[in-house]
Amino acid sequence: MSTAIRTTVWNEYRHEKDARHPAHTIYPEGIHEAIAAGLREHPNLEVRTATLDEPDQGLPPGVLESTDVLIWWGHMAHDDVPDDLVARVQQRVLEGMGLVVLHSGHYSKIFRLLMGTTCALKWREGEDRERIWVVEPGHPIAEGLGEYIDVGHEEMYGERFDIPAPETLVLVSWFTGGEVFRSGCCYTRGSGKIFYFRPGHESFPTYFNPEVRRVIANAVRWAAPVKGPVPVFGETAPLPVG
Amino acid sequence: MSTAIRTTVWNEYRHEKDARHPAHTIYPEGIHEAIAAGLREHPNLEVRTATLDEPDQGLPPGVLESTDVLIWWGHMAHDDVPDDLVARVQQRVLEGMGLVVLHSGHYSKIFRLLMGTTCALKWREGEDRERIWVVEPGHPIAEGLGEYIDVGHEEMYGERFDIPAPETLVLVSWFTGGEVFRSGCCYTRGSGKIFYFRPGHESFPTYFNPEVRRVIANAVRWAAPVKGPVPVFGETAPLPVG
Amino acid sequence: MSTAIRTTVWNEYRHEKDARHPAHTIYPEGIHEAIAAGLREHPNLEVRTATLDEPDQGLPPGVLESTDVLIWWGHMAHDDVPDDLVARVQQRVLEGMGLVVLHSGHYSKIFRLLMGTTCALKWREGEDRERIWVVEPGHPIAEGLGEYIDVGHEEMYGERFDIPAPETLVLVSWFTGGEVFRSGCCYTRGSGKIFYFRPGHESFPTYFNPEVRRVIANAVRWAAPVKGPVPVFGETAPLPVG
Amino acid sequence: MSTAIRTTVWNEYRHEKDARHPAHTIYPEGIHEAIAAGLREHPNLEVRTATLDEPDQGLPPGVLESTDVLIWWGHMAHDDVPDDLVARVQQRVLEGMGLVVLHSGHYSKIFRLLMGTTCALKWREGEDRERIWVVEPGHPIAEGLGEYIDVGHEEMYGERFDIPAPETLVLVSWFTGGEVFRSGCCYTRGSGKIFYFRPGHESFPTYFNPEVRRVIANAVRWAAPVKGPVPVFGETAPLPVG
Repeated sequence: MSTAIRTTVWNEYRHEKDARHPAHTIYPEGIHEAIAAGLREHPNLEVRTATLDEPDQGLPPGVLESTDVLIWWGHMAHDDVPDDLVARVQQRVLEGMGLVVLHSGHYSKIFRLLMGTTCALKWREGEDRERIWVVEPGHPIAEGLGEYIDVGHEEMYGERFDIPAPETLVLVSWFTGGEVFRSGCCYTRGSGKIFYFRPGHESFPTYFNPEVRRVIANAVRWAAPVKGPVPVFGETAPLPVG
Repeated sequence: MSTAIRTTVWNEYRHEKDARHPAHTIYPEGIHEAIAAGLREHPNLEVRTATLDEPDQGLPPGVLESTDVLIWWGHMAHDDVPDDLVARVQQRVLEGMGLVVLHSGHYSKIFRLLMGTTCALKWREGEDRERIWVVEPGHPIAEGLGEYIDVGHEEMYGERFDIPAPETLVLVSWFTGGEVFRSGCCYTRGSGKIFYFRPGHESFPTYFNPEVRRVIANAVRWAAPVKGPVPVFGETAPLPVG
Repeated sequence: MSTAIRTTVWNEYRHEKDARHPAHTIYPEGIHEAIAAGLREHPNLEVRTATLDEPDQGLPPGVLESTDVLIWWGHMAHDDVPDDLVARVQQRVLEGMGLVVLHSGHYSKIFRLLMGTTCALKWREGEDRERIWVVEPGHPIAEGLGEYIDVGHEEMYGERFDIPAPETLVLVSWFTGGEVFRSGCCYTRGSGKIFYFRPGHESFPTYFNPEVRRVIANAVRWAAPVKGPVPVFGETAPLPVG
Repeated sequence: MSTAIRTTVWNEYRHEKDARHPAHTIYPEGIHEAIAAGLREHPNLEVRTATLDEPDQGLPPGVLESTDVLIWWGHMAHDDVPDDLVARVQQRVLEGMGLVVLHSGHYSKIFRLLMGTTCALKWREGEDRERIWVVEPGHPIAEGLGEYIDVGHEEMYGERFDIPAPETLVLVSWFTGGEVFRSGCCYTRGSGKIFYFRPGHESFPTYFNPEVRRVIANAVRWAAPVKGPVPVFGETAPLPVG
């Protein structure tokens, strides 16, 4: 219980390098650093970052092997993530690594692979305000939250969100423009836990919001691996029952 | 497949009898008759009504025994429904009878008994407009619908709705005042299927809305009993395996 | 309701062509014909078959487009199914086509793609007898069944079965050798319904068992497409709420 | 994380007092003491016991208020638990207290109330051996376990088990006599988590089995309350969205 959760914040880190993009000003050190700073406020999380343009896309085998929970932010460069890296991440999730997929990461190769669907949705960059309601107040990811989070100005994501029904639906968003969205969705794949969390458009300072940060930290703790049985697959002999 | 589904629409039928209440004008023959009229547009549904102030609260054993799907609307008179009737309805649900609980029926004795929770929620009689989004477009209860239903002026119900997480969440409501609500919720209890459907405040003509009527008719078909195995409980001998 | 469900039974059809294999004797016309014969006993099912060694692997676009429910049996030739066909089947499922995956189809490309996991399991070709228990007696797939099905001599499949937890678990198998298995598993992906059903090893006459046939027919009816909303994805304007 | 989880082990404690009953010899200090001894091996659990024949049935308001997780064992005396105590336990669960229901506790008033069903099942006191398979190896309740637990000689419980489908099914039992059982079942009611765990007949020394003890300790940790939002129910004003 007391061992630190080794958390890797992965970000494609492209918008923020473009001096003409709002993300350049809002997240001068990159979205990953804002997320990592939020996590570093919490005890028992050991936090590092990784980005797409680093060697091995920031995730060489050694890093992935020593990651308990991986956070994923991507948007414009999903196709630049090589398929073999996606396969390695999937393998690690099935082995038990947690995965927290943020915002536009809904369209990442890894999320779509683990869901088996298109993960498509409605969206709008407009004047929308977002309010996120907690519908499961007893879930570990709701710890420390109020009944809702007012995120303020954000990109709108609306239903139908083409995902398998979440095993647990923790959060539902309301947008001024008339849409709703399943914003906090828990899944299990193999021995690994996955949490999709909606907010975090690159043009807004959402990852400085303390309640958004709290959700991400809670999700990391919820998704941390459990040392359960390692299933043995394949041909097997009858086991005498004692 | 071709046998008619014997559907009983139960209504407490109190608001509508009060000449000073808007329901008196909107539903002069009672909410049950408006719902029944909507169902009678559909083939293969055999529809009757029952109300609280009839003998046996409208549900003597013979009626309950010959009901495939029971629709329940109640609000101000939940406590006037006797506990033994509630126990008989529960028993019929466990045996396979479908149950469609509407709007303020969330607080009925029978719904709370089947859920095991308070079924409490937030509410407001104000200026709210309601839009209901379909989040599971492949579900039988979504048949014939568009992506959303604009219900118009309605009472607001907001989360946290204190129910067990639905087995399938089909519909989610958006309200102008800033709230969301899990509006179309599927459950199984015993061999019976239960659908909770949110809209239908007595002061609005919601049950004349063709899409609301469509949801109720779809729910009746979805909740109709299946002739599956009748479980045998209690002490049992070992069964030689062939 | 009264329109026939257009059902296509797809089989790799390889074991049965091998004169030395037990399947050659048990299923002289192929497993697909045994399954199709079982379905043809039911009204409202329009049944055709398709096999891997036919042109377009039996599933040219026209066939897939006019299939409401696809049944899938494969074992030794999963890799001979081209990826573009798998992508087309996935697309059709997301649009609403039902998919019933049988026995060793757990390892088919299409099932693994839709699940997002390895779908690995334990197995044994031995002396096992299988009994399948109905754990959801009110589910449409349990219609007409008793409390359990004694399948007799079958290949054993045992847990851990590396699938996402089913949305509904209808059937659980017991094997003489000491194993259990989640044998009847319901999923939704996009607008399509998926049912995995365990029994049906090629060396046993399982698809002549009337109760096994009944499960497959029930599954076809349960998985038939619903004419629900067709979601529109992508950028969207705010919708004035009426 | 570091605060101790205040755990109360409640037992009806009747069989064990009967000198002619095997439980008298197997559990001379009562089943509750065997369970408590298993829990006391784990750090961060603060364990006390309570029994039916103590004042206030062992659960005066002060005890219940200061309990984070309540463990419940009952069998022959379910009816001696007063309804108002059951109502208080339900209220505490809805507020967030965890509840671990063991073996014949499936028929306790509190479990049936929280489930909304009869919780009936098949049973047999015979020669059965039980093997419990882990079907969700990544779940916190599976921590430290192997792929299965051989419990040895136990009372048989068989499907159909008349419960709502568990939110997460962690364990499935196999019995020599030909039955299966959903043996480890997770639920949420209100803000509280509930775990039903099958083994533990009073005539067998099951609660001395280290793996059974491990499951119970894991369940206590999983079910511990989360300091999430406290929902406010009832009439509410519109909330301006920032």
